[in-house]
Amino acid sequence: MMNYPHLLPIKEVGYNRMRLEFLGTGAGVPSKERNVSSLLLDLNQEKGETWLFDCGEATQHQILKTTIKPRKVAKIFITHLHGDHIYGLPGFLSSRSFQDGTSPVMIYGPKGLESFIKTSLAISGTHLRYPFDVIEVNEGIIFEDDTMTVYAQPLEHGIPSFGYRVEEKDKQGELLPEKLRALGIPPGPIYKQIKENETTILPDGEVVQRKDVVGDDKRGHVISILGDTRYLPNLQAFVKDSDVLIHEATFADEDATLAYDYFHSTTTQAATLASEANVNKLILTHISSRYTGERIEQLRLEAATIFPNVTIAHDLYQHEITK
Amino acid sequence: MMNYPHLLPIKEVGYNRMRLEFLGTGAGVPSKERNVSSLLLDLNQEKGETWLFDCGEATQHQILKTTIKPRKVAKIFITHLHGDHIYGLPGFLSSRSFQDGTSPVMIYGPKGLESFIKTSLAISGTHLRYPFDVIEVNEGIIFEDDTMTVYAQPLEHGIPSFGYRVEEKDKQGELLPEKLRALGIPPGPIYKQIKENETTILPDGEVVQRKDVVGDDKRGHVISILGDTRYLPNLQAFVKDSDVLIHEATFADEDATLAYDYFHSTTTQAATLASEANVNKLILTHISSRYTGERIEQLRLEAATIFPNVTIAHDLYQHEITK
Repeated sequence: MMNYPHLLPIKEVGYNRMRLEFLGTGAGVPSKERNVSSLLLDLNQEKGETWLFDCGEATQHQILKTTIKPRKVAKIFITHLHGDHIYGLPGFLSSRSFQDGTSPVMIYGPKGLESFIKTSLAISGTHLRYPFDVIEVNEGIIFEDDTMTVYAQPLEHGIPSFGYRVEEKDKQGELLPEKLRALGIPPGPIYKQIKENETTILPDGEVVQRKDVVGDDKRGHVISILGDTRYLPNLQAFVKDSDVLIHEATFADEDATLAYDYFHSTTTQAATLASEANVNKLILTHISSRYTGERIEQLRLEAATIFPNVTIAHDLYQHEITK
Repeated sequence: MMNYPHLLPIKEVGYNRMRLEFLGTGAGVPSKERNVSSLLLDLNQEKGETWLFDCGEATQHQILKTTIKPRKVAKIFITHLHGDHIYGLPGFLSSRSFQDGTSPVMIYGPKGLESFIKTSLAISGTHLRYPFDVIEVNEGIIFEDDTMTVYAQPLEHGIPSFGYRVEEKDKQGELLPEKLRALGIPPGPIYKQIKENETTILPDGEVVQRKDVVGDDKRGHVISILGDTRYLPNLQAFVKDSDVLIHEATFADEDATLAYDYFHSTTTQAATLASEANVNKLILTHISSRYTGERIEQLRLEAATIFPNVTIAHDLYQHEITK
């Protein structure tokens, strides 16, 4: 069962779990093998919701092949406005309403996104059963709450394109029973109180500082998801120490000139960034339909010579972050 | 081979052939069984082109499962602007360009369609390699050339919705060799000249009137394709004598109240219209996802009690008009 923690009831999973599910991993136009771009970040365990990154045409059709519930999608981040990253948005939003979605949706993306969404919904006479808001992104923090921070970073793609760094905040360490016992505090409801407050006064008047009885903070996870871009060596700081870096690799190493001309990256360029930024895992996506069959493994191998922990995503590929 | 004339080289097919291919036959939202609306009319033999009726999301994905070439699609008729009938348009038009489509496309539909298309293409920075034009339809003739006439008819659907009647013009009858021989004209290139001109002067000075040596005109085919609508008995005149009537049947006979409330039709309502308008074949589409499995055959049977020559379309269902 160790490889399938998402099949366990939540309370049996002993650690935080974020899950990535690739809904579309192709470039430009859909093919029989790969749909156009969309990626889901499952934060059900952390926040009871899922986030979507890009929403190419037929993203909702891909979702039909998964266990994803559209009503759980609370945030949508759009990297850039090319059709293969946004044409599925009006349909997804409409169907989410039709399928009993009533909670709000926040949508983040470049300028122009709101006009596309509102025009599409208005002309089709679509009235959503939930509110939504479109936030125009610029460099820096675009979202923050008590568990997550999301940063945006401009990329280089001919039109405005962004990368998103999702940082889970560090979590307080667990209570250490041996330290509590050493202080002579027996197990009981008081443990919960000690865990939830910086200072607790015990019935006997003694004061317990939480910091003295918990372990080290648990580092939050970091996931960096980049939109289409030319290779940018100066992205190192933005993606540094990511548990997972999702990078486009539209082209093979030998097609670096094409990649540059069309504002895209190659396998080896993405691997170089991963290597230099100390990321743990690299997932390549947005693969040109010119590469199929055995050629895909070749793409992986040429990236792996630079950064070994690399996977070429395919549609419905899942990755769990359990570190 | 008789059932597969489309597999024969064109010159071996002894009659006109129009072919319908249903790309999406569901209502409202895509399901695993049925995509949202789109229907292709293959006029390759008549005009060297194909026409598309409606273009719901993932129509281009459905086309990947067929032999249809997007660059051959020369006309797109939109029945109404609900999302399940138009959200695939920006992606289809973009991919047609990417896939070497360079010939013009004419798009017909209700007011607002042009704004949706142009906003979607502009915001996504999409530059098509071919010209297109959007024609706002109203009641009456919306297209006519030397082989076809297309009429539009307002329906009743809460928002403007249209039916389209595609009429192939009658064709001159075939040359009758026995009549030519009776006039003492031996077979040769002169036959072609006689066939192509109202009057031909033979080498010996004799005058041949074409009408005297050809058979009866061949009646052109008529195909009526209706958008979403409440049952409208007064549509009889518009769909009269159609070789094929394509009618929505979102609901079963027992759900007539739902059909009325949501501006849709039932199986038996569509069958009644087909029966009263003397059509040859009825194809029902836009089937609610609430009906699956054996329920589909029940839908067909309840329509067949009124109009026997009826089929419930499914995705990728094809019908050839060979009468």
